[in-house]
Amino acid sequence: MLKKWVPAEKPEEQELKERLKEAEKKLEKYQIQVKEHRLPVIVVVEGWGAAGKGSAIGKIIRNIDPRFFRVAAMEEATEDEKRRPFLYRYVARIPQEGKFEFLDSAWMDEIVRQRLEGELSDKGYEQRVESVRRMERQLTDNGYLLVKLFFHISEKEQKKRIENLKKQKDTEWRVSRWDKLQNSHYDRCAELFDRCMADTGSSNAPWYIVDAKDSRWAQLQALEALCGGLEVAFQNSRGAVPVPQNVFPLVKMPLLSQVDLSCSISDEEYKKELKELQARLSELHNRLYRKKVPVIIAYEGWDAAGKGGNIKRITGALDPRGYEVHPIASPEPKEKARHYLWRFWTRLPKTGHIAIFDRTWYGRVMVERLEGFCSENDWKRAYNEINEFEKELSEWGAVIIKFWVQIDKDTQLERFNERQNTPEKQWKITDEDWRNREKWDQYEEAVNEMIRKTSTEFAPWHILPSVDKKYARIQALRIVIRELEKALS
Amino acid sequence: MLKKWVPAEKPEEQELKERLKEAEKKLEKYQIQVKEHRLPVIVVVEGWGAAGKGSAIGKIIRNIDPRFFRVAAMEEATEDEKRRPFLYRYVARIPQEGKFEFLDSAWMDEIVRQRLEGELSDKGYEQRVESVRRMERQLTDNGYLLVKLFFHISEKEQKKRIENLKKQKDTEWRVSRWDKLQNSHYDRCAELFDRCMADTGSSNAPWYIVDAKDSRWAQLQALEALCGGLEVAFQNSRGAVPVPQNVFPLVKMPLLSQVDLSCSISDEEYKKELKELQARLSELHNRLYRKKVPVIIAYEGWDAAGKGGNIKRITGALDPRGYEVHPIASPEPKEKARHYLWRFWTRLPKTGHIAIFDRTWYGRVMVERLEGFCSENDWKRAYNEINEFEKELSEWGAVIIKFWVQIDKDTQLERFNERQNTPEKQWKITDEDWRNREKWDQYEEAVNEMIRKTSTEFAPWHILPSVDKKYARIQALRIVIRELEKALS
Repeated sequence: MLKKWVPAEKPEEQELKERLKEAEKKLEKYQIQVKEHRLPVIVVVEGWGAAGKGSAIGKIIRNIDPRFFRVAAMEEATEDEKRRPFLYRYVARIPQEGKFEFLDSAWMDEIVRQRLEGELSDKGYEQRVESVRRMERQLTDNGYLLVKLFFHISEKEQKKRIENLKKQKDTEWRVSRWDKLQNSHYDRCAELFDRCMADTGSSNAPWYIVDAKDSRWAQLQALEALCGGLEVAFQNSRGAVPVPQNVFPLVKMPLLSQVDLSCSISDEEYKKELKELQARLSELHNRLYRKKVPVIIAYEGWDAAGKGGNIKRITGALDPRGYEVHPIASPEPKEKARHYLWRFWTRLPKTGHIAIFDRTWYGRVMVERLEGFCSENDWKRAYNEINEFEKELSEWGAVIIKFWVQIDKDTQLERFNERQNTPEKQWKITDEDWRNREKWDQYEEAVNEMIRKTSTEFAPWHILPSVDKKYARIQALRIVIRELEKALS
Repeated sequence: MLKKWVPAEKPEEQELKERLKEAEKKLEKYQIQVKEHRLPVIVVVEGWGAAGKGSAIGKIIRNIDPRFFRVAAMEEATEDEKRRPFLYRYVARIPQEGKFEFLDSAWMDEIVRQRLEGELSDKGYEQRVESVRRMERQLTDNGYLLVKLFFHISEKEQKKRIENLKKQKDTEWRVSRWDKLQNSHYDRCAELFDRCMADTGSSNAPWYIVDAKDSRWAQLQALEALCGGLEVAFQNSRGAVPVPQNVFPLVKMPLLSQVDLSCSISDEEYKKELKELQARLSELHNRLYRKKVPVIIAYEGWDAAGKGGNIKRITGALDPRGYEVHPIASPEPKEKARHYLWRFWTRLPKTGHIAIFDRTWYGRVMVERLEGFCSENDWKRAYNEINEFEKELSEWGAVIIKFWVQIDKDTQLERFNERQNTPEKQWKITDEDWRNREKWDQYEEAVNEMIRKTSTEFAPWHILPSVDKKYARIQALRIVIRELEKALS
């Protein structure tokens, strides 16, 4: 793009002034519409060091009420961020509906820098690009407006600016190592930016190159691109988008009705096994901490299937400093106002840590599907979005273990009645549980579809027969241990 | 995609049967909705030779009324087609609103074959991919549903099928040279398909890989992908889409108000010049015929500006076997029912020929804009769509000459009155002309914007001052001659 790109003609001073004023007025008006349309807007400002990205953002946001936007300067990842998946710190910053998020440099800058410094192999680069494409597609598919700007200046101009900055003590600090590196490898760097823009441009989120030689002209171009993007988004009612094909290897899974629920274990055997397995898990926990392997354990299952007790037997073996349990209830407003995976992205463990989810992102294709909390197109798309999410985690190096805790309808009734009739257990049973129970068959169908479509080789489901809860606990421990041993070997 | 792709599990016979029945029923129902939604549907069936593309299409169309679909087997381009731009024969086949078009192999097959046979350089390949991307984006941006399937079989399977076909006289002819070439270079070919799918997949028109080992299973996958695509499209109301940034070098142009209209030429000089220039143009016409250079001359201008007389002075110098004049009125129903550029694509000249358009595709950003025949988003997007169209022509090797024939408002009034008052000229003046005249200022604004945004280096506008029509004619001849000389040198 950069090679072929020819800047638009900079207007005369008078016209520039007028157009700036007009664009600013527009943006001021549009911020209200953004709120009314509940539109989440991400403005990615990428480009050369010293091209004036920050100062352009500074001028643009003067036209937006501070309640409606945030700016994030994406410097090099912190040590903590480096222990998360590549996209973590970007996804963490996606805005709520009705708000703007400005990113001063983002994923492209990071990719190009890593590439230039030889930290990223060809394969690594392709993986990154694929990750970015998937994320961007997921965002726009889910109603986000993504405006991507690239601030462009020539090698000579960049050199001049860097030297001017370096001259004065007050501005010297603003020249980063990366800026200098860019300038001394300008052509190679331009090639990398170019390639990356070609690889990550899409019709839903195209790149706009901003001629940044003159700062007010750059400001105008950025403002106009942003306003143009907003205008398009306002005209769109939320439409359906293509359901992507699954491209990941799937593991063949049984239907829930085919699961043998008669398995059981004697008390004696249970005690013995539990002790041994927990001791082994404890050991492994230390090793994965040392080897910095992140682990994600996801629990789903019928109400009263025994998830809670099962989780306890896992955590009982773990060092509390190295794990966290995330009980997932219905989303909070700030979570509901974002991409549905956001609240899981932001709960990802650091490398070497274990995150256990008591209910998960699979709510999208179960309760949200059946209760109509999202559109049909939304949940149909979600199988693949979830596979992509887990693929991301798997490529990052995470061990992903997903449990479906299975019981039959009669067992559930028994346990519901027991809860109802036992004063200290009554809090565990709600009207909603009874209502959900009425939809057992619909849920069963949805769960079968979910298990079939999301049992990827890198993140297969494990079905735990839990009519005998003890049996299910021993099974869970065995599976966790087996998977950790595999990852650590 | 092929490398990473893992086929979905083929269902058991009973399930396969049921799902086939269900999908067929769906498609039968959906064909009516396609009609009602006035949705144009392109189904591109690409894939390996002998993968069963044709027979799958044959089975799918049994569920559609013959009035609603066409099938085109895109064999190698004919000699005539080879004298048109690469995309010509594909664009020519795009369906009307409410209809299906099935393409048995399409642009990818052609690109991969040319690539394998070494007919396409790296740069040539990139150009093709860019062309395809642009076209696909233009189609989906303009409301087309594009379903792209790739029928995949293994090297071994392909070999087996080719050998089976070759065994029998009745089927021997079905094995093409290209099929055999594919099989003997299977890995390289798979790589090329893979790359091409990665390069041309988009969120609006993704690739679906069909596991074609079993023909009924392939049929089911294709049917389900098609039905899925239709479901998504039915849920969409026509939304606004991003306006792409101009990436082409523009030539700085004056405003209409800045054009000096006082230029004139004496009768004597006119006669002399006309004779000389026409003689020269005649010569050049022969040369460009021989050198197979295609030429496109586009005329736009105010009513009564003198376009007709101007065109006559050009054609007066040309051999009638080598040119065609296309007067462009409002589109016919079958034209209106397609992408607005379709009627121009299908009127492109062959190499060595001249096509003169009396009014053009620029109607989109003038009359269609001002009369509300298309949405604001449509005409705003059109500047770039048109630049892309002309870029396509230019890369094909065409000389593109665009004239705006300019007069002032008073001159128009004089000529209108003269037409009105001269019986033999009355047919030339209509109520519509008077109505358009009332909107002069709006048109002037639109024309200024059009000239500014579409004067690319490869297809700049030429403004012809035509208060003195003779002056304008001489100018036009000079410009045509200059451009042809440039192209022929």
